[in-house]
Amino acid sequence: MLQTRSGKRTGAGAVKIAVDLVAAGMITEREAILLVEPTHIDQLLHPQFKDEASYAADVIGVGLPASPGAAVGQVVFDTETAEELYARGNKAILVRVETSPEDVGGMNAAEGILTARGGMTSHAAVVARRWGKTCVSGCAELIVDQADRWLSLGGVKLHEGDWLSLNGSTGEVIRGATELAPPTISGDLGAFMSWVDRERQLKVLANADTPEDAATARENGAEGIGLVRTEHMFFASSDRIETVRRKIMADNSADRESALADLLPYQREDFEGIFREMDGFPVTIRLLDPPLHEFLPDGELDEIVALLAANTGAEESDVVDRIEKLAEINPMLGFRGCRLAITYPEIGRMQVRAIMEAACAVQSDTVDVQPDIMVPLVGTIEELRDQTAMIRDTAARVFHEKGTVVKYRVGTMIEIPRAALMSDQIATEAEFFSFGTNDLTQMTFGYSRDDVSKFLPTYLEKGILKHDPFQVLDQDGVGELISTSVERGRSTRTNLKVGICGEHGGDPASVYFFHRANLDYVSCSPFRVPIARLAAAQAAVKNAR
Amino acid sequence: MLQTRSGKRTGAGAVKIAVDLVAAGMITEREAILLVEPTHIDQLLHPQFKDEASYAADVIGVGLPASPGAAVGQVVFDTETAEELYARGNKAILVRVETSPEDVGGMNAAEGILTARGGMTSHAAVVARRWGKTCVSGCAELIVDQADRWLSLGGVKLHEGDWLSLNGSTGEVIRGATELAPPTISGDLGAFMSWVDRERQLKVLANADTPEDAATARENGAEGIGLVRTEHMFFASSDRIETVRRKIMADNSADRESALADLLPYQREDFEGIFREMDGFPVTIRLLDPPLHEFLPDGELDEIVALLAANTGAEESDVVDRIEKLAEINPMLGFRGCRLAITYPEIGRMQVRAIMEAACAVQSDTVDVQPDIMVPLVGTIEELRDQTAMIRDTAARVFHEKGTVVKYRVGTMIEIPRAALMSDQIATEAEFFSFGTNDLTQMTFGYSRDDVSKFLPTYLEKGILKHDPFQVLDQDGVGELISTSVERGRSTRTNLKVGICGEHGGDPASVYFFHRANLDYVSCSPFRVPIARLAAAQAAVKNAR
Repeated sequence: MLQTRSGKRTGAGAVKIAVDLVAAGMITEREAILLVEPTHIDQLLHPQFKDEASYAADVIGVGLPASPGAAVGQVVFDTETAEELYARGNKAILVRVETSPEDVGGMNAAEGILTARGGMTSHAAVVARRWGKTCVSGCAELIVDQADRWLSLGGVKLHEGDWLSLNGSTGEVIRGATELAPPTISGDLGAFMSWVDRERQLKVLANADTPEDAATARENGAEGIGLVRTEHMFFASSDRIETVRRKIMADNSADRESALADLLPYQREDFEGIFREMDGFPVTIRLLDPPLHEFLPDGELDEIVALLAANTGAEESDVVDRIEKLAEINPMLGFRGCRLAITYPEIGRMQVRAIMEAACAVQSDTVDVQPDIMVPLVGTIEELRDQTAMIRDTAARVFHEKGTVVKYRVGTMIEIPRAALMSDQIATEAEFFSFGTNDLTQMTFGYSRDDVSKFLPTYLEKGILKHDPFQVLDQDGVGELISTSVERGRSTRTNLKVGICGEHGGDPASVYFFHRANLDYVSCSPFRVPIARLAAAQAAVKNAR
Repeated sequence: MLQTRSGKRTGAGAVKIAVDLVAAGMITEREAILLVEPTHIDQLLHPQFKDEASYAADVIGVGLPASPGAAVGQVVFDTETAEELYARGNKAILVRVETSPEDVGGMNAAEGILTARGGMTSHAAVVARRWGKTCVSGCAELIVDQADRWLSLGGVKLHEGDWLSLNGSTGEVIRGATELAPPTISGDLGAFMSWVDRERQLKVLANADTPEDAATARENGAEGIGLVRTEHMFFASSDRIETVRRKIMADNSADRESALADLLPYQREDFEGIFREMDGFPVTIRLLDPPLHEFLPDGELDEIVALLAANTGAEESDVVDRIEKLAEINPMLGFRGCRLAITYPEIGRMQVRAIMEAACAVQSDTVDVQPDIMVPLVGTIEELRDQTAMIRDTAARVFHEKGTVVKYRVGTMIEIPRAALMSDQIATEAEFFSFGTNDLTQMTFGYSRDDVSKFLPTYLEKGILKHDPFQVLDQDGVGELISTSVERGRSTRTNLKVGICGEHGGDPASVYFFHRANLDYVSCSPFRVPIARLAAAQAAVKNAR
């Protein structure tokens, strides 16, 4: 029996064997849970094209089916462009002759990866499978002109920004944006996942920034949203981003308030959609986190200045001044997170007003709205006190205006080492904690995620690190801070809700750790929710708490 | 008697009262130690001009004597330029119409501060006194042209880079570089400091990068050097910095080794001078720490490229490539510290060879050399194992070649939160720990020291922080990591030597904490050594361990 586990099986096969063995009375449902690897579920749950027959005329080439699933996005040729698209909520297909560790940022940001060289165990293929990204590798006919940013395949020339689709299960490369169907859970898998959900003790939530993401999350079994990144809403249209830029260029509180008043309806509308999708489940909304300069356009300085001056009506010299003031040496450790809303209280008030107006509008006899407002980048109890006061005051004003009241909670990200250490104090104000393991890993190791590729390959090769700590949680160091924080937080507030919303939420080994650390939930990307559900169930079966 | 403590006294007065009361048999020497404030010593110990009569003809103006002492440096008009000079080991006088919190970086980097506006309690005056910087404020005749970078005073026009001297005790502004005399300790102060040294349990070392700094440190009573920043040696001459740049531009190991071979004699010569000055005392040498791009020239990109191409003989396009590869989003969390020497082992081998060749050359019957080699930015035991092996192997080779052996120790900075947590493991390899409280504060709070001025003034004003944590150690958060590290490190190695070499080493409140945390030593700038000695003695008198 045990031998079946190490044999090579497809995801569908693994689930079928497990379900059949239970049906034959040979193993219990609990035992069955341990027979399927989380990666098997990954394989089953990738998006597929809605109709594979429909795109036959658009296939321009075929490579190796290196990592399953279907991906649609705009062609990009480097990490920077892939990340820019991702940051704006757009989808990219990263096209390279072959990939190297320096491309991992772009691979992570892209929907799919297409390479001209490399087999089923090439860098691109291995990394893509690990991350559950669609990948077509070794497409030998593909010509990539990196400098002039075009590709040629099957007689078709595509430029950066053109749409392309990849079928990672067949190796097909398809021009244009082919329609996707979300993965569905049914049959054997449905039965299997019902056992999984019965055994696990961790709740599984999803990170989602739009009503569409929220719907996908629900379909994949998410029990709420663990992270809404409000800033992603600002990139959703050119109207929105121009209004944000007008806010940033404003040099006085009145102009800032006016630009913010224009942003409020956009935010409220998004929150309304998300609350509706998440009827009966918590929606954890993080207040503005990134440094303001992330909202400026890219390009050469003079182009940026001209664009901003045109957008905002400011003098070019004032724009230059403002850009220089916003520039930072180490933006990761700079003017971001709650530091923004404490310095410019009108930003936080606008966001909380949008959340609460949306909550009041959606809440009804049939829709149960559960907003959890989350303050980012807290390091001191005084920061959280300031923000909690602002949130409670703004909420009370909205409830008074609307003549209704919505129950909500106020909590904080734990992502700064000091916050983990001071958790007994911080829990006096916070009703929940959510570990931001990406930032916590950055600060605990002193590694910039954006720069780590300069030495991480050497570290992995020399065995100085066993894993990329941004992929697999460092249980010794970062894990100790998490355990300490949970213990200290609950020493102050016994019913403190504790979860995690970094990328580690979807990594099986990390999920085992979060189970043992007595967290209440993990939150991960919508497509990884089923994987996290299985990992949580396996942790529960193996390690009763 | 207690009232005398709160009355306003000069430093000399305070020491005289304390010594007289002991002489009269009214108090014990231990009680006398508590009667003098560390700031009093600060006041007594500033550098003075060698001959105040000699410069009378060069006095171009007089302002308020806002913070005592004498300062000599090159005129600069902004923080960036002050910091650039400081980074290169040069001395600056920061000239401003008035200062604001945004200028603190430049004030810290400058030898002295001159302002046109502001009284004895202006921002410039208060900050300068706190830091023991010479300051002349409110020099009303002074005209400052910030844009074109010149000043005019007493009919004399000076440009950026011209030399200027300030007498902070008289308010005199003197053109040119007036000769300084180091402060001396004698008379009442000598007797008083001898009681201080008898009572204190913490050793006091100094941070020093040159034989001259080492001599000043000895004169001020330092019992060794707690931090030699080897990279400062690279900036000492244009020959050196050009050789460093040749190394950085090298794209293969052979070219790197050749450039490093040229650097070795410079480093060896500096180490020889420092070892001679520190006969009988430990000299703690930190291997290369900053990211390589800090060694590139400043200016516009095309100027830099042309200069580097000329310096190194590389093609301009290769220079551009290399600069782009070196650029980082968050250099503080990037490719620096031991990450450099692990990736490019030839750098570490050159540095250790220079140290050991110098140690072999200087050690004799009459000179006792005690090198302590310190690995920076360690976060994992595997990093330290890699570096310890490289150090011990290189040292053994040098000893074999020279036919002699020098006793040395290998230790590490504890400046990454993870290193503090993993101290039980790290102490298996490290014979000493030195807390880098600057970096540890940056990472524990998630604050970039270079960017914190964007929100720190608001945080201090709103009471979110009581102090600038880079000035006064955060005992709750950073302090807990230090205490944990000391405890865990000594649980592995009971005789582990533990000290601190961040700027907090010269802050009295922080020194009290280090005493209670059972450190062996603090290391601070040479001029703050007497202050640290008194603070350590007061801590010992008040808090027997």
